[in-house]
Amino acid sequence: MILITIDTKSRHPLFEQIVDQIRSLIESGGLKEGEVLPSTRKLAENVGVNRATVYRAYEELWAAGYIEAVAGGYSRVRKRIDPVKQQAEIVVDRFGWEGHLSDAFMSISQTRLFSSAQLDGLIDFRSLSPDSDLLPVEDFRRSMNAVIQTEGASVLQYGDPAGYLPLRELLARQMKQHGIHTSADEIVLTNGMQNGIELVCRLLTNPGDCVFVESPTYASALTMMNYLGLKVQGISMTSASMNLDELEASLRKQKPKLIYSMPTFHNPTGISTSQSHRERLLRICERYGVPLVEDGFEEEMKYFGKAVLPVKSMDRKQQLIYLGTFSKILFPGLRIGWIVAPVTLAEKLRRMKEVTDLSGSPLTQAAVFRFCDQGFYELHKKRIHRAYRKRMQLALAACREFLPQQQVQFTRPEGGYLIWLTTCFPLEREAELNQKLIGTGVAVSPGSRFFAADPEKAHFRLSIAHRKEDEIVEGIKRIAEVIQNFN
Amino acid sequence: MILITIDTKSRHPLFEQIVDQIRSLIESGGLKEGEVLPSTRKLAENVGVNRATVYRAYEELWAAGYIEAVAGGYSRVRKRIDPVKQQAEIVVDRFGWEGHLSDAFMSISQTRLFSSAQLDGLIDFRSLSPDSDLLPVEDFRRSMNAVIQTEGASVLQYGDPAGYLPLRELLARQMKQHGIHTSADEIVLTNGMQNGIELVCRLLTNPGDCVFVESPTYASALTMMNYLGLKVQGISMTSASMNLDELEASLRKQKPKLIYSMPTFHNPTGISTSQSHRERLLRICERYGVPLVEDGFEEEMKYFGKAVLPVKSMDRKQQLIYLGTFSKILFPGLRIGWIVAPVTLAEKLRRMKEVTDLSGSPLTQAAVFRFCDQGFYELHKKRIHRAYRKRMQLALAACREFLPQQQVQFTRPEGGYLIWLTTCFPLEREAELNQKLIGTGVAVSPGSRFFAADPEKAHFRLSIAHRKEDEIVEGIKRIAEVIQNFN
Repeated sequence: MILITIDTKSRHPLFEQIVDQIRSLIESGGLKEGEVLPSTRKLAENVGVNRATVYRAYEELWAAGYIEAVAGGYSRVRKRIDPVKQQAEIVVDRFGWEGHLSDAFMSISQTRLFSSAQLDGLIDFRSLSPDSDLLPVEDFRRSMNAVIQTEGASVLQYGDPAGYLPLRELLARQMKQHGIHTSADEIVLTNGMQNGIELVCRLLTNPGDCVFVESPTYASALTMMNYLGLKVQGISMTSASMNLDELEASLRKQKPKLIYSMPTFHNPTGISTSQSHRERLLRICERYGVPLVEDGFEEEMKYFGKAVLPVKSMDRKQQLIYLGTFSKILFPGLRIGWIVAPVTLAEKLRRMKEVTDLSGSPLTQAAVFRFCDQGFYELHKKRIHRAYRKRMQLALAACREFLPQQQVQFTRPEGGYLIWLTTCFPLEREAELNQKLIGTGVAVSPGSRFFAADPEKAHFRLSIAHRKEDEIVEGIKRIAEVIQNFN
Repeated sequence: MILITIDTKSRHPLFEQIVDQIRSLIESGGLKEGEVLPSTRKLAENVGVNRATVYRAYEELWAAGYIEAVAGGYSRVRKRIDPVKQQAEIVVDRFGWEGHLSDAFMSISQTRLFSSAQLDGLIDFRSLSPDSDLLPVEDFRRSMNAVIQTEGASVLQYGDPAGYLPLRELLARQMKQHGIHTSADEIVLTNGMQNGIELVCRLLTNPGDCVFVESPTYASALTMMNYLGLKVQGISMTSASMNLDELEASLRKQKPKLIYSMPTFHNPTGISTSQSHRERLLRICERYGVPLVEDGFEEEMKYFGKAVLPVKSMDRKQQLIYLGTFSKILFPGLRIGWIVAPVTLAEKLRRMKEVTDLSGSPLTQAAVFRFCDQGFYELHKKRIHRAYRKRMQLALAACREFLPQQQVQFTRPEGGYLIWLTTCFPLEREAELNQKLIGTGVAVSPGSRFFAADPEKAHFRLSIAHRKEDEIVEGIKRIAEVIQNFN
């Protein structure tokens, strides 16, 4: 019998409180290696919380290496991989730092980290960074080399906080291909998408403010918004888009500081919305006077040729902010994203960029400019379009062929890397199902982390970004088998 | 007669309110090109504020290009350099974004930006980035080239949020040279110093919390702290250090969340504190249980050979966080700094880094590692030590020879790039004196921006980082002349 007490008034989510306490028990020796934890049902009853909450806590503990699954659906305490460091962490805090931590840190202290190492021997459908084998390393090396030779120290000094001007000009031209008429003055380069989301949120919100997001949505955007102390309200996704009736109903109740949306190749579902949906979304934002933040993180991955233009392309009232990134098509490790915003905001974002960073790296920005300017980017885009067109076709064919229709539905993306599985099983069984998938050698992203509030069903996100053709088919076969035999 | 109204209860500093209103008048045509503004004395009387406040406002307006000095110490409205963009900014805000801005942005909206273009033909003592002519561009190009060739896509994908491990290991070894015994586990790479200050402040403070800094201090740290909503209390600098009696008296009144200090080559004064001062500072922090954040931004610039070790080297209770950067010795444009923190904090900082950035750029981090690992860094360090040893000796000799002792005192740094001038003139005359310096072809950093609260006297910071020998001597001669003839 383990003793856990829950504070329902705490800022800390319930499942995190459970995680914290069980972890403390393990670390202090109150729970020993090999001890079996109570079933989720039993612990939920004892503590007085929903069973899903306990599941989520167990999933976190599993991910952190504190527990493992045993026969009969139970979990038992396991030996940590890295006890020395863990021990050091406990012993070494001579000062008592725990009493000094900010609310901002506490709000993310239990968030699952995404950079978990790839597990050997698994078909890993989690990573959303492009396949290394498709990256134009040699062309980029030459671009980098040439930039240092020709521009020298000038790109190695502090740069313009808004970013390297020729790259902003080039991005303005690239944006025109997507119907967005903009100029370098309206563009601010960021350290990838995440930095763009932070800057925009910090420009337009104070802690405690409300923002609307799709539910599910990009998990790291949720984490960022928690970090900034925002109240995040999820607007549910239909099979085709954000539910705009629900959005309007919510707007009548409260006006958020912004609406964050991914109309194209939505993360995690892969859904792209229709032109008429985009028009209606824009009209709603205009009517309620709410800024719309459009995340076009995979805008350039329209390899099936269907190209609905971004909402930003229709933004006559200039109340949209568009976020882009190179990370899903070129090199994530360059950390280059961008914001397109009305000039009055772009100047303010530039100032915030300077206050927080002084500037991005002119060197990497100049190297990417040169790479694009010399035509390598367009060549590269065509090449990865060919590769992923084929991979996505294969993946969708495998989903149609193998996935049991009764137990699981999948989305049919028109580009990008993501397929979203909605199972017939309740959320409470997501962690269990996930462990079975791992057991059969497949890693996917459990769906619960993408929701602002818990959904009913267990979901999984598949990213094909990092997988080859044969792995894709084999992986989906295994997923199908696990789901088929799950009950 | 211009009409300005002041809200003394506003979060907006008084001088910024004056700046805003005069700028609006100019932009709306209420004040026309060539019109002479009231004297600072007169406007101060009319508005009911201190004369220094009006001076500061006029200085801001001058820096932004809205006014210019005319004979008799008056200022008049001038034509803006970039009216089109300025106009666009006003006309184009169709949405009314001004009503949507956050407190965080408002707190920095009027802060002077530092990246102002170098003014042609001036001897510019403002920039704190190393002389481009001394930067080892070609060696770095080869390191970058080799890294892309040997590591390929692996350094072009997302990296560890804590930073590229070999570079962290190398920094741990480098820290040992300064008496800091640490390991890669305790190091988190940042996007330069500024990002390090932000992460540490956000880990340890909530908006509204109090922090102590030296007064004067690094201006962009002040800006960052304002941005984070912190209450900043300045502890005055003596000619040798932070005034520790004043620190203790302040600590008895209120306990800040952290103390931010630059014991070595303090910015802006160039002062390095003694060993006994460091010991006493540490003992005070220990006694009051307050975290100390030590900014060692120029630690590696000890070219006169005198090397007091960082306070962090004595940190047995592990209540110090040390901040370092490559920006003052290698390439600022790589944006690489680092935090050394007790491992329990380092893990938390790593998590925050991931939430805000996902990771830094493994590519630039790996290139710097290779550059250092192959011995180029040590060679480069010796080379710039030689150059700046000579430049600083020349600068100090010129100060001794030319500066009028009655009117101005200067610090005698034991390394780094900075010399600090304390004039006999009151703060109110700083802007005027600064304009005279510009008039004689010398740009320096006016001192007022480095203070948390207004000082009595007019100060100026000279950085020799970007200047050659002959310019240094000539620049200091001109400064001496202007000060001599100022009254």
